[in-house]
Amino acid sequence: MIKTDILIIGAGPTGLFAVFEAGLLQLKCHLIDALPQPGGQCSEIYPKKPIYDIPGYPEVLAGELVDNLMEQIKPFQPGFTLGERAETIEKLDDGTFIVTTNKGTKHQAPVIAIAGGLGSFEPRKPLLENLSVYEDNGVAYMIKEPEMYRGRKVLIAGGGDSALDWSIFLADVADEVTLVHRRNEFRGALDSVEKVQQLKNEGKINLMTPAEVVGLKGGRKLEKVTIQNTETSEEVDVTVDHFIPLFGLSPKLGPIADWGLEIEKNAIKVDNSLDYQTNVPGIYAIGDVNTYPGKLKLILCGFHEATLMCQSAYQRIHPDKKYVMKYTTVGGVTGFDGSKKEAPKAVVKAID
Amino acid sequence: MIKTDILIIGAGPTGLFAVFEAGLLQLKCHLIDALPQPGGQCSEIYPKKPIYDIPGYPEVLAGELVDNLMEQIKPFQPGFTLGERAETIEKLDDGTFIVTTNKGTKHQAPVIAIAGGLGSFEPRKPLLENLSVYEDNGVAYMIKEPEMYRGRKVLIAGGGDSALDWSIFLADVADEVTLVHRRNEFRGALDSVEKVQQLKNEGKINLMTPAEVVGLKGGRKLEKVTIQNTETSEEVDVTVDHFIPLFGLSPKLGPIADWGLEIEKNAIKVDNSLDYQTNVPGIYAIGDVNTYPGKLKLILCGFHEATLMCQSAYQRIHPDKKYVMKYTTVGGVTGFDGSKKEAPKAVVKAID
Ligand SMILES: Cc1cc2nc3c(=O)[nH]c(=O)nc-3n(C[C@H](O)[C@H](O)[C@H](O)COP(=O)(O)OP(=O)(O)OC[C@H]3O[C@@H](n4cnc5c(N)ncnc54)[C@H](O)[C@@H]3O)c2cc1C
Ligand SMILES: Cc1cc2nc3c(=O)[nH]c(=O)nc-3n(C[C@H](O)[C@H](O)[C@H](O)COP(=O)(O)OP(=O)(O)OC[C@H]3O[C@@H](n4cnc5c(N)ncnc54)[C@H](O)[C@@H]3O)c2cc1C
Repeated sequence: MIKTDILIIGAGPTGLFAVFEAGLLQLKCHLIDALPQPGGQCSEIYPKKPIYDIPGYPEVLAGELVDNLMEQIKPFQPGFTLGERAETIEKLDDGTFIVTTNKGTKHQAPVIAIAGGLGSFEPRKPLLENLSVYEDNGVAYMIKEPEMYRGRKVLIAGGGDSALDWSIFLADVADEVTLVHRRNEFRGALDSVEKVQQLKNEGKINLMTPAEVVGLKGGRKLEKVTIQNTETSEEVDVTVDHFIPLFGLSPKLGPIADWGLEIEKNAIKVDNSLDYQTNVPGIYAIGDVNTYPGKLKLILCGFHEATLMCQSAYQRIHPDKKYVMKYTTVGGVTGFDGSKKEAPKAVVKAID
Repeated sequence: MIKTDILIIGAGPTGLFAVFEAGLLQLKCHLIDALPQPGGQCSEIYPKKPIYDIPGYPEVLAGELVDNLMEQIKPFQPGFTLGERAETIEKLDDGTFIVTTNKGTKHQAPVIAIAGGLGSFEPRKPLLENLSVYEDNGVAYMIKEPEMYRGRKVLIAGGGDSALDWSIFLADVADEVTLVHRRNEFRGALDSVEKVQQLKNEGKINLMTPAEVVGLKGGRKLEKVTIQNTETSEEVDVTVDHFIPLFGLSPKLGPIADWGLEIEKNAIKVDNSLDYQTNVPGIYAIGDVNTYPGKLKLILCGFHEATLMCQSAYQRIHPDKKYVMKYTTVGGVTGFDGSKKEAPKAVVKAID
C-alpha cells in the first residue's frame, strides 16, 4: 500500500504543479498516470510544439515546460505510479480513500486530487483477431523502457510523429526496426520524416509501405506478424520479438466517471467559488478534467486551481492548524530531501 | 483622450499579463501606473530577488519575470501612462468609462480592469517645511528619466537598495552625487553596499553619514539643502540641483477606494465564481487588489484571474459575437504589429 497526503490522479502539468504547492505546505504527493511518462497532453501529444500563453514565457516547448515543472517539484520528491490506470476508489471509515489501479497497485490518502485532463490516455488498437493474447507478450502500445528493445527485432506500425520518432530512436537500440504504414506519406515534423528517409536509405530502418499488419502468429509469445501490401494484397510473414502499433492515444474519462462524482459535459463539476472540490468531500478535481461556469481548458488555469486546492487540502488534513502563507521569495523552498533554496539575504553594513 | 478596449489600472504582473490574454482576443489595452516603470511590486520592491513559485520556473528573478512578460505582450502594443495615479472614474451614457489621472490625463474604455495590487505606490516623504514648494522643482521621489540628471548635482537620501542602486547608477551620469543617510550602516544587497564603498573611495560618491536633510533653500527652484550631522548636530549647506529622498514607496488603495466599489479588508470584492467582476458591471478587479473566499495574493493567481476576466470583457465588448478559444499552439499569436508566431506545421511527405 502506497500512502501519501495527496494522491494525484494524472501527472499532466496541473498534477505536477500541485506537487509543488502541496510541498510548500509540507504535504507529500504521489501521482498515478496511465502514460509511461509524466506531462499529460504536453508530453504525449505535442512535446516539440511551442506554447505561447504560459505566463512569463513568450515561447516554451511543451516538453520543456514539463521538464521545468519536474525540476521545480524535485525537492518535494513525489512518488509515481506510471503506466497504470486508476480504476476504483473506496472510502474507509477513517475518512481516507483507497485508489486501486488496473494492475492492482493500491494507494491510500486522506485527499484525492483528480488532475485527469481529458481522461486516461488509452491506445487506439488495431483490429486483429488474437491481439489480446499477445498484449504484454510481444505487443505493446507505448514504449515504457526503451532499453528492453536492445538487440531485439521490433516492428512499429503507424504514420505519425510517435511512429517516426520511436523508429528513429530504436534504430540505434534494436537489432532490427521495421516501420509499417498503410500509406506512403507520413505526417509529422519535417526533420523526423527526413531522418527516417535517411535511416531507410542507410538500411537501418526497413520500410514497408503501403502496408498493414493483418495477423499475429506465435505460441505464448509473439513470433511473427503477417503484413499485407494494401495495393497488391500480397502477404508476407516477418519474424519479430515486438509489435508496437502507434496509432495514437485517445483520452477517456473512463473509470473515474463511475466514482459517484457529478459529471457535466464529460468533466467533473467542482466548486470554483472556493476550492475546486467535487460533490464528494475530500475529492478535488483540477485542470482540464473539471468544469465550472466560465471554465477554460488552459494550463495556466490548472496552476491556479491546483494552488487553491492545496490550501483546502491542508485544512482538511490539519483541521486544527492555521497556515500562514509565506511568499517563496521570503520563506524560500525547503525540500523533503533536505534541500533549501532561498533568496540572498540583505546585509546591514557600514560604509566608511 | 486616450481610447482603448480595456483600460488597466496597475502595470504589475497581473495587469501586464491581461494585455496578452486580451490581445489573443484582439482587444487592445492601455495601462496606467503611478510608478515610472512597469512591474508593480516585482519591479519596485524586489527586482533582484528570486521567486520560486511561478509555474514552470524553478527560479526566476522578479525583474526577469517582468522583462519576460513585457516581451510576451510586445506583439499587442499596449499603451502606458506611467508616473500618474488614476484618480477619478466617470460613467458615460454610452456605458463607457472615463478615468482621469492626478495629472489630468484622460482615458476612455468600455471595460476597466483594476489590477492595482496593494494600491498605488506612493513615496514616503521626509518632514520638511517647504517640501511641496520644490516638488517637481528640484525634489523628486522617483527617478523617471535618469538622463535628466546628466551633468547635474544630485543629492540622494536613504539607506536601502533604492538609495544605493541609484547612487551607483547616477555616479556615472550626474556631475556630483551625494548620498546622505542617518546611520553609517546601509541595508541592501552585499554587492551594492560594496560598490558604493568603492565609488566613495574613488571620490565618485560623496558620502554624508550619519546625517539628515533638515532644510531646503532656493527661489522658485531648489538651490541648496541643509544637512545636519545626527551625532554632532553640526549643519552644512550643500549646493544641489536635485534632492531625491528614497525612503521607500508604500502602496495605498487611495482614490480607487472611493469609486463606489464594494471594499473588504482593503481590497475590492469580486465575483470569483465567474469573471472577477466587481459590483459595478464593466469594472473588473484582478490580482492582489481583489478579494474573495480563499483568495491568495500570488502572482500565478493573478494570471488566471486576468485570463477569465478577458473572456468576460470580450462578451461585454462584443455581445453578439461568440468567441471560440483556440490554443496558442494551434492558432499561433498574431500581434497588432503584424507579427505572427506559430508552431512549425507538420508535413505530409512520402518516404521512398
Ligand atoms: C495540440 C494541443 C495544443 C495545446 N496548446 C495549448 C496552449 O497553447 N496553451 C494551453 O494553455 N493549453 C494548450 N493545450 C491544452 C493543455 O495541454 C491542457 O490544458 C493541459 O495539458 C491540461 O493539463 P492537465 O494536467 O489538467 O491534464 P492532461 O495534460 O490531460 O493530463 C492528464 C493526465 O491524467 C492521466 N489520467 C487521466 N485519468 C487517469 C486515470 N484514471 N488513471 C491514470 N491516469 C489518468 C492521463 O493519462 C494524462 O496523462 C493544448 C492541447 C493540445 C492537445
Ligand atoms: C518581498 C515580496 C516577495 C514576494 N514574493 C512572492 C512570491 O514568491 N510569489 C508570489 O506569487 N508573489 C510574491 N509576492 C507578491 C507579488 O509580488 C504580488 O502578488 C504581485 O506583485 C501582484 O501583482 P499585481 O499586478 O496584482 O499587483 P502589483 O504588483 O502590486 O502592481 C499593482 C500596480 O498598480 C499600481 N496602482 C495601484 N493603484 C493605482 C492607481 N490608482 N493609479 C495608478 N497606478 C496604480 C501600483 O503602483 C502598482 O504598480 C511578493 C511580494 C513582495 C513584496
